[in-house]
Amino acid sequence: MKNIILASKSIDRSKLFKDAKIPIEILGPDIDEEEFKKKIGDPIKLVRELAKAKALYIKNIILESKRDAFIVAADTIIEFNGDMIGKAKDEQTAFQILKRLTGNVHNLLTGIAITRSIDSKIVVDYESTVVKFLELSDKEIRCYLKSGDWKGRAGAYAITEKASLFIEYIQGSFSNVIGLPMHKIFLILKNQFNLNLLEIKEI
Amino acid sequence: MKNIILASKSIDRSKLFKDAKIPIEILGPDIDEEEFKKKIGDPIKLVRELAKAKALYIKNIILESKRDAFIVAADTIIEFNGDMIGKAKDEQTAFQILKRLTGNVHNLLTGIAITRSIDSKIVVDYESTVVKFLELSDKEIRCYLKSGDWKGRAGAYAITEKASLFIEYIQGSFSNVIGLPMHKIFLILKNQFNLNLLEIKEI
Repeated sequence: MKNIILASKSIDRSKLFKDAKIPIEILGPDIDEEEFKKKIGDPIKLVRELAKAKALYIKNIILESKRDAFIVAADTIIEFNGDMIGKAKDEQTAFQILKRLTGNVHNLLTGIAITRSIDSKIVVDYESTVVKFLELSDKEIRCYLKSGDWKGRAGAYAITEKASLFIEYIQGSFSNVIGLPMHKIFLILKNQFNLNLLEIKEI
Repeated sequence: MKNIILASKSIDRSKLFKDAKIPIEILGPDIDEEEFKKKIGDPIKLVRELAKAKALYIKNIILESKRDAFIVAADTIIEFNGDMIGKAKDEQTAFQILKRLTGNVHNLLTGIAITRSIDSKIVVDYESTVVKFLELSDKEIRCYLKSGDWKGRAGAYAITEKASLFIEYIQGSFSNVIGLPMHKIFLILKNQFNLNLLEIKEI
């Protein structure tokens, strides 16, 4: 059995692997994301660099214990009208984010970094998905916020929860909107690391 | 508390409501779908007529008990190169379906019908989402089939489960691919039946 380590504490990301019946281990990296955000103004570069930093952080921990494992790391951000939007710190900020996104199209960007503890190779990539929201009233946004779904999610929504009611369409990878572009992780592990996720044993 | 009845035994459809924290009751209609398929050659007309028949079947049951309830019914089919593809009856048929869809684009069509037991109005609509699969080898398809995800699903896959590994992109409503275009149900109930799903009490 090959070990896959998800370098993320995101419940949404681990659920993607669980729903795909792929056993993983979770190890959250300790990275100062704010430092990166201060230095990097380009959203694609930011999510790629953050994913890379997270993967390398976990790789160092794994190497210390001389284990052989694949490491998958990611970072997600919303890009809207040239601005970068991350997680909301409180319900009021979440309201302001959704008030901006409602009725509009935004891009959901996820940077991914994949490496293997015993291999010097690291593959860094990203995926962008277009998401269109229906127009919501202030009252509807406030009702939505009561669900609590906004907590810990870039852009203050979770596509598979109550936000399904106001997501008109997406263009691109749906799993990317949840937190990980699974088809891209499948292709990178298969083509660059000789690990086929469709062929590994299920949990 | 307003009652919403989902006229479908599909676990995927009831999960969409559950994940959106909307309380529903489930009542499966007893409709001979094969009869409709023999008579109707157009896929959009077929899913619309089947959804309508399911809604009216449940409406009659509800009316007998003089209850006031909203009824949501749906039917899903895959359209590929002019052919209609439904659920696979066994693993071999599932293999043949996926062998056709792999590497290609197909349309996932869901017909919906919404009515209220005490109201003569019935709104019938449909949603179409484009889905693109990665190219898979026969071995990969066979490994996928072992997950059992193909059972009971139009097109022999479930987007939120293991198929996330080979769905390259979608264009349109993601919840439609799961089984119900939730944003359209939200809009119809709000605009045509004065019921706002964002404002109802959560479960």
